[in-house]
Amino acid sequence: MHDAGTLLLSLFLIFTAAKIVAELFEWMGQPGIAGEILAGVVLGPGVLKLVEPNELLTALAQIGVLFLLFRVGLEVKASELIRVGPIATLVAVLGVLVPFAGGWAVLAYTGASRIESLFVGAAMVATSVGITARVLAERKLLQERASRVILAAAVIDDVLGLLILATVSGVRKGQINYLELGGTALLAIGFMFLVVRFGARATGHVIPLLEKRLHASELQFHLALVMLLGLSLLAQYAGVAAIIGAFLAGMTLSETVSVRVHVLSAGVSEFLTPFFLAGIGLNLDISVFAKQNTIILALVILAVAIISKMIGCGLGAWKLGRSDMFRIGAGMVPRGEVGMVVAQIGASFGVISKDLFAVVVFMAVATTMVAPALLNIAWRSNGKPAGSSVLP
Amino acid sequence: MHDAGTLLLSLFLIFTAAKIVAELFEWMGQPGIAGEILAGVVLGPGVLKLVEPNELLTALAQIGVLFLLFRVGLEVKASELIRVGPIATLVAVLGVLVPFAGGWAVLAYTGASRIESLFVGAAMVATSVGITARVLAERKLLQERASRVILAAAVIDDVLGLLILATVSGVRKGQINYLELGGTALLAIGFMFLVVRFGARATGHVIPLLEKRLHASELQFHLALVMLLGLSLLAQYAGVAAIIGAFLAGMTLSETVSVRVHVLSAGVSEFLTPFFLAGIGLNLDISVFAKQNTIILALVILAVAIISKMIGCGLGAWKLGRSDMFRIGAGMVPRGEVGMVVAQIGASFGVISKDLFAVVVFMAVATTMVAPALLNIAWRSNGKPAGSSVLP
Repeated sequence: MHDAGTLLLSLFLIFTAAKIVAELFEWMGQPGIAGEILAGVVLGPGVLKLVEPNELLTALAQIGVLFLLFRVGLEVKASELIRVGPIATLVAVLGVLVPFAGGWAVLAYTGASRIESLFVGAAMVATSVGITARVLAERKLLQERASRVILAAAVIDDVLGLLILATVSGVRKGQINYLELGGTALLAIGFMFLVVRFGARATGHVIPLLEKRLHASELQFHLALVMLLGLSLLAQYAGVAAIIGAFLAGMTLSETVSVRVHVLSAGVSEFLTPFFLAGIGLNLDISVFAKQNTIILALVILAVAIISKMIGCGLGAWKLGRSDMFRIGAGMVPRGEVGMVVAQIGASFGVISKDLFAVVVFMAVATTMVAPALLNIAWRSNGKPAGSSVLP
Repeated sequence: MHDAGTLLLSLFLIFTAAKIVAELFEWMGQPGIAGEILAGVVLGPGVLKLVEPNELLTALAQIGVLFLLFRVGLEVKASELIRVGPIATLVAVLGVLVPFAGGWAVLAYTGASRIESLFVGAAMVATSVGITARVLAERKLLQERASRVILAAAVIDDVLGLLILATVSGVRKGQINYLELGGTALLAIGFMFLVVRFGARATGHVIPLLEKRLHASELQFHLALVMLLGLSLLAQYAGVAAIIGAFLAGMTLSETVSVRVHVLSAGVSEFLTPFFLAGIGLNLDISVFAKQNTIILALVILAVAIISKMIGCGLGAWKLGRSDMFRIGAGMVPRGEVGMVVAQIGASFGVISKDLFAVVVFMAVATTMVAPALLNIAWRSNGKPAGSSVLP
C-alpha cells in the first residue's frame, strides 16, 4: 500500500500522456499508435525520466497485449485461418529467410563474428503481431483477406522464429541437437494444430454445457478468461509466445461467446494497451545515438529490417496481387518485443555487445513505430481517396 | 519475458481457483465472494504454497479494487450521497469510536502496553468498503437507502481512520502535533468536499466539450480512466485511500457517461476483482494458530471487531429502523486491507509484536469473509422468503 502512490502516478502519467500524444498524432494525420509509443519514449529514461521501466509496468504491458490478441482472435474463425494456410506458410517462410539473410549479411559485412551475425539475423526474424492487430482492428479491416493472411502468417512465423533461435543457440554451444530441435518443432506445431483444428468444436460443446449447470453472473466472460490465461500459459509451455496462445483462445471462442464478452474484453484491452505501446517506447535505448558508427549501423539495420520483411512476405503473397502483397508485407514489419527478447538472450550469452544490443532494440522499436504508417499507405493505395484513411 | 511464465501461471491459478471455489460456495448457499477469498488462503503460503503473495499480484489487486469502487460510484449520484450525509456521519463516527474503544479495552485487559492497545484499536477502526460494494452491486442493491448510507459512511470513516492513525502515531512519538493534525483533516475533507460538491457539474461541462473536439474511438472510456487514475492519485496525496478517489471519480461521472463505459469498466473489474479477493486470502498468516493464547486472542478480537462495528454503526442509524440498522452495521464490518496497513505501520514502529500483527491480519481477513454472509442475512431479514437471496 505504501508504494501504491508510485504505481498510480506511473499509471496516470503513461495512460494520459499516451492518449494525448495519440490525439495530437491523429490531428496531424499520423497514426495514433505511433504516438502512444512516442509517449513512452518521452516519459522514459531517455528524455523526461518521469517513468522508469519496471517489472510491474512490463507485466501490465504483457497482460494488455494478451487481451489485444484475444480480442483480435474473437473476430477470426479457425476455418478462415485454415483456408489461407498455404499462402500464409509461404509468407511466413520467406518473411523469415530474407530478413535473417539480410541481418546476417549486414553484420558479416561490418566484420562481426559468425555467431554475432547469426544472432542479429535471428533477432530480425520474428514479427510481433500486436501492433498490426491493433491497427487492423481499429480500422475494422480484420475481415479482409490480407488481414487473415497476416494473422495466420504471424502464428507460423512465431514457430519459425522459435526454431531459428534454437538453432542459433545450438550453433553457439558448438553443436545442434537435431533431436531436441525436432522435439521443439513437434511440440509447438502439435499445440497449434490441436487448438486450431479442434479448439472451436470443443469449446462449442463445453461452454453451453457449463452454462446450463453454473449460474454465476458474467459466467461466459469468466470462462473466456480461463481459456485466455490457460492457452497463453500452454503456448508458453509449448515454446511459442503467450500472445499466440491468447490469439488462438479468442479464435477458439469466436463462434461461441456473446457480444457482451467482446465488450468486456475490450474494456481490459482499452485500459492496458497504452501500457503495452508506451512500454515499447520506454525500452528505447537512446545510447544508440552516442556514437556515429552506431547510428549508421542502426539506420542500416532498420532499413534492412523493413525492406527485407516487406520483400520476403510480399514475395510469399505473389499470387494475391500487388496491393495485397504490399499490405501483407507492411503488416509483418513490426518486430516489437520479440526482437528484443532474442537480443536479450544473445546478450546474456555474451555474444551480443552492449552497442549491438542497443541497435537491435532500436530496430525493434522503430519498425513498430513505422508499421502503422506503412499500413495506412498500404490500405490507402487501393484506389480509395486519400481522405478515407482518416481514422473514424 | 522470461518470468512471464510464472506470472501467467499465478494469474491462471488464482483466477480459475477463485471462480471454482466461488461456484462451490454458491452451490452450498454461501456467498461466492467468501469463496474467492478462501481460494487465496488455499493457494497461498499457508496451505498449498502454489502462489506467493508478491508485488505484482498486490498491484493487480489494488487496480482491481479501484475499478470495483469506480463501478459502484458510477451507480451513485452525488446528490443522493449528500442527502444521507447527516445519518452517514453519525454512523461513521459511532462506527469508529465503538470498535476503537473495544480493541483498546481487550488489549488493555490482556495487560498490553498503552501504545499497543491504542494501535490495535486504530486497526479495528477503518472499514474497507470494497467487499460490501461488490456484494451490493452484484445483488443490485445499490439503489437502496441502507446502501447509500453505507457508501457515504465509508467515505467519512476513511477520513476518521486517517485522523485516528495520525493521532495514535503522534502519541507514540510522545507528542500530538495538533496543527499538523488539523492540516491533515482539512486537506482530506477539503478534497472530498470539492469533488462531491463540484465534480459532477465540472465533468458534465468538460466531457461533452472534449467529445466535440476529439475523435478517438472509445474517447469517453479513456476520459473516464484518466479521471479514475487522476482522482485516485489525488486522494492519496490528500491522505485518504485511493479507492475513495476511485469511488468519487465514478460518482462524478455517473450522470455523464454512457452505458458502454459501464460495461467496459465492468470488463476490467470482472478480470481483476478475483486478484483482490484471493489476494486478501493470500495474506492470511496462519501462524496465528500456532499458540493457544494467540488463537483465543484472535477469536476474541474478531468477535469484538464484528460486534463493536455493528453496534456502533447500528446505533448511528437508529432513526432508520431495525432492519436498516442491521444492514448498515453488517455492511461496515469488513476491515480488509485497511486494517492490515495500520497493523503494518504499528509493526514498522516496533510497537506491535509479530503475534499481535498476525492477530490483526486474521481479524481483517476474517471480518471480510464473514461480511457477505452477514449482508445476506441482513437483507433476507426483510420479510422476503429465504430463497430470494440466491444470487441471480
